[in-house]
Amino acid sequence: MQPPVEIRDSSEYRRRMNELLTIDPRRTVVVTVDMQNDYLDMELATAPVAPQEARRVIGNSKRLLEFARTEGIPVIHAYVKRRPVEVERGFESHPMVSISQRARVSQNAQAEARKGPDRIEGTPQAELPLELVAPGDVHVTTKRVMDSFHGTDLDTLVGRVFKADTVVLTGINTDTCVLATTFAAGNRGYRPVVISDCVASMRGIDQHWMALEIMSRSIAWVMTIDEFKAKVQAVKTQNPAAAR
Amino acid sequence: MQPPVEIRDSSEYRRRMNELLTIDPRRTVVVTVDMQNDYLDMELATAPVAPQEARRVIGNSKRLLEFARTEGIPVIHAYVKRRPVEVERGFESHPMVSISQRARVSQNAQAEARKGPDRIEGTPQAELPLELVAPGDVHVTTKRVMDSFHGTDLDTLVGRVFKADTVVLTGINTDTCVLATTFAAGNRGYRPVVISDCVASMRGIDQHWMALEIMSRSIAWVMTIDEFKAKVQAVKTQNPAAAR
Amino acid sequence: MQPPVEIRDSSEYRRRMNELLTIDPRRTVVVTVDMQNDYLDMELATAPVAPQEARRVIGNSKRLLEFARTEGIPVIHAYVKRRPVEVERGFESHPMVSISQRARVSQNAQAEARKGPDRIEGTPQAELPLELVAPGDVHVTTKRVMDSFHGTDLDTLVGRVFKADTVVLTGINTDTCVLATTFAAGNRGYRPVVISDCVASMRGIDQHWMALEIMSRSIAWVMTIDEFKAKVQAVKTQNPAAAR
Amino acid sequence: MQPPVEIRDSSEYRRRMNELLTIDPRRTVVVTVDMQNDYLDMELATAPVAPQEARRVIGNSKRLLEFARTEGIPVIHAYVKRRPVEVERGFESHPMVSISQRARVSQNAQAEARKGPDRIEGTPQAELPLELVAPGDVHVTTKRVMDSFHGTDLDTLVGRVFKADTVVLTGINTDTCVLATTFAAGNRGYRPVVISDCVASMRGIDQHWMALEIMSRSIAWVMTIDEFKAKVQAVKTQNPAAAR
Repeated sequence: MQPPVEIRDSSEYRRRMNELLTIDPRRTVVVTVDMQNDYLDMELATAPVAPQEARRVIGNSKRLLEFARTEGIPVIHAYVKRRPVEVERGFESHPMVSISQRARVSQNAQAEARKGPDRIEGTPQAELPLELVAPGDVHVTTKRVMDSFHGTDLDTLVGRVFKADTVVLTGINTDTCVLATTFAAGNRGYRPVVISDCVASMRGIDQHWMALEIMSRSIAWVMTIDEFKAKVQAVKTQNPAAAR
Repeated sequence: MQPPVEIRDSSEYRRRMNELLTIDPRRTVVVTVDMQNDYLDMELATAPVAPQEARRVIGNSKRLLEFARTEGIPVIHAYVKRRPVEVERGFESHPMVSISQRARVSQNAQAEARKGPDRIEGTPQAELPLELVAPGDVHVTTKRVMDSFHGTDLDTLVGRVFKADTVVLTGINTDTCVLATTFAAGNRGYRPVVISDCVASMRGIDQHWMALEIMSRSIAWVMTIDEFKAKVQAVKTQNPAAAR
Repeated sequence: MQPPVEIRDSSEYRRRMNELLTIDPRRTVVVTVDMQNDYLDMELATAPVAPQEARRVIGNSKRLLEFARTEGIPVIHAYVKRRPVEVERGFESHPMVSISQRARVSQNAQAEARKGPDRIEGTPQAELPLELVAPGDVHVTTKRVMDSFHGTDLDTLVGRVFKADTVVLTGINTDTCVLATTFAAGNRGYRPVVISDCVASMRGIDQHWMALEIMSRSIAWVMTIDEFKAKVQAVKTQNPAAAR
Repeated sequence: MQPPVEIRDSSEYRRRMNELLTIDPRRTVVVTVDMQNDYLDMELATAPVAPQEARRVIGNSKRLLEFARTEGIPVIHAYVKRRPVEVERGFESHPMVSISQRARVSQNAQAEARKGPDRIEGTPQAELPLELVAPGDVHVTTKRVMDSFHGTDLDTLVGRVFKADTVVLTGINTDTCVLATTFAAGNRGYRPVVISDCVASMRGIDQHWMALEIMSRSIAWVMTIDEFKAKVQAVKTQNPAAAR
């Protein structure tokens, strides 16, 4: 459909803000949000993104995470792994999600509403695609709501263990858990950088695009993997001590 | 400009979700977010929304808040009032906002970037439009970041003082502080309802519209004042005890 | 030594407060705090409590937890399990603990200061005594600081999964992690009950006793297992629906 | 009464820990906790500490705060100021306090249990003794529970506005709000220093003494004003840049 309002071109603001940003790899972490089979594996997913979006995000994220590991940038995977008892007790992560699901009204552009509780520990849906995980990665699996910082030790890891000032965000869905976590990072004073190549939404590429548009206009630096790499390289050239 | 992706029509999802919602006025609070002269008073504002948007939001909010007070629904104003010492010490509420402002790159569709710290206590910019305030209203002025729950007693008020399950949101800006607070309400298990008549963005009506679109597709019930009133009336008709 | 002040007898206050308390088993959870081999297993412990204290706490806790499971009261084990990377990065859980340890000044009444990082995941010191664990128990292992609620999903479990109003506390050490968690439970509006039979301190029975004394005079109901059992039985007798 | 256990002498541990501590005044804040007339003004107090304790704390705190201001160390007053609506709605800050008060069972060594809600905004009981307040001080009045960090902007002030690593604590009561806030400071990685001259408890000097004993053995540096002053002077002598 035609939006009822004219969408302005904000690329110039985004370009200038990205230009102003410097990234010190020693004070940076990469966080993947809900980067799970339940969204990304077309065989297993109960809430899939579009197949081409899954391929795009997995391929690009593999490339980003390998770069990060090479540069000594910590990789943290934050995702939902429900304990069976939470499901038995009927825990609701978000009232709108529960009501939507119970009424069988789907938000998903590719599939029906989930039929029951998702991502229970021990199920393959709760796991990450194998190609995105490496031995030294950190797993934060107590995420229960959209914001990955809420009720988890993510802030302790970012601020006190890794002493980072920049949080690089990737994952699923651009418009909900990535967006909520991007807000939460900024609220804590961290600089949020969202890698557009590595995020997607099951609600469609329009919702994905609008979320990136919203973030880039006010709360996050939105850039591609290549732009991110260039920023890391630039700092290392200027300051060899930043290379580890 | 033409969005690079086709925007789907999500009105049917929104309609069905709104239909499924019942609102108990005894367990509901209305929260205004940063409903301040600095955005809404065309004489005073350093970060104004468009004049017609200011008129729309003020007029409608007056109507909403009067209805809420009549129904015994608590009205909470959450907004930023900086202590002078915070300004002297150079406190940054969000790194992107600081960098943007220092470089004089404006996000505002109507005005230049703010020239200095905003909404300091004692200045008229930090006050709310007079027509939106009444004696029994609750003021939460320790908001410092986009999320009105972060570092404030808003959760104590909503959950433990008013024992509410539904948080009705209004204020400025739809795409930043309202959106962040809507996420935060949902993360805590509250049902977020955003009144479209009573929110606006200094970043333009396109950004405002996209934020509402994003919220209504997954994290909040988005409705007009009249739809909200009808929901409150419906419950009172079915259950006279809900009338106070 | 003789305390420099006369210690008053507060048993009458404690008795009357305990009398006033009713406990609904359907709204109660039992939380063990740092109930780990590193304190309790005399072969493995690097920060042991006194051997007879370890025996007392393990024996009694076994009895309490079995009672809880029989009554359908959820058992949550909250404890520290450090990721190796946290140790490599030199994460400090509390500045006083770090400075004390580095200077080799021990707080422990039985042993020297710990020589290095404690309770790393994969080590037997981080595990719980086998007799205290059963299949349906819930494990919260992201505890990193003294307060078991800080940076964990314990509040989500207690409040939103189990919908409890009463938190029964046990574990090690009475004067630090148990005390901090008891404060945190009360701050959130839960009713804290500390089972004196099931807590101990590596800093000695005087420190343990003073912590119980402090708690019982203002912030927690302190009682024995038998008193707790009697309270659960009393409610079931009065209200058979509370029996599950 | 005679404690049922022998109290060990921990003064050597305290002495050594205090020796190990250095304090940088540029990274230090002083926090007063509930330093209010309701405890300290013998005419107004509904929950008084002993008169000589009130005199001791007020006199010493005046001296400490004047020293802090002279040294450029920020002074933050954190205390409870209830909005009338919270009282009308029956908000309970801690379940044990409510039950105790309703049953008229007093914790106070000098007075009966409070008869109703305390420290409502606009009442003189909620104010601080005049001699303890100066124009540049910061007031945090949204404290509602024992921990001054809970639901307030104290962490934002300490960590992000003042960028402090050391939190110096004073106030009422040593065994509840001061103790809870000392735990909370340590949980966040700040170094807690409790000034023994400037804290007291309405529950008696035994409870006050035990709380100091507990803190000094594991979670806080406990020292007198003079010891604190000497530490600040020592740093300034070694590093004149620390003098402002």
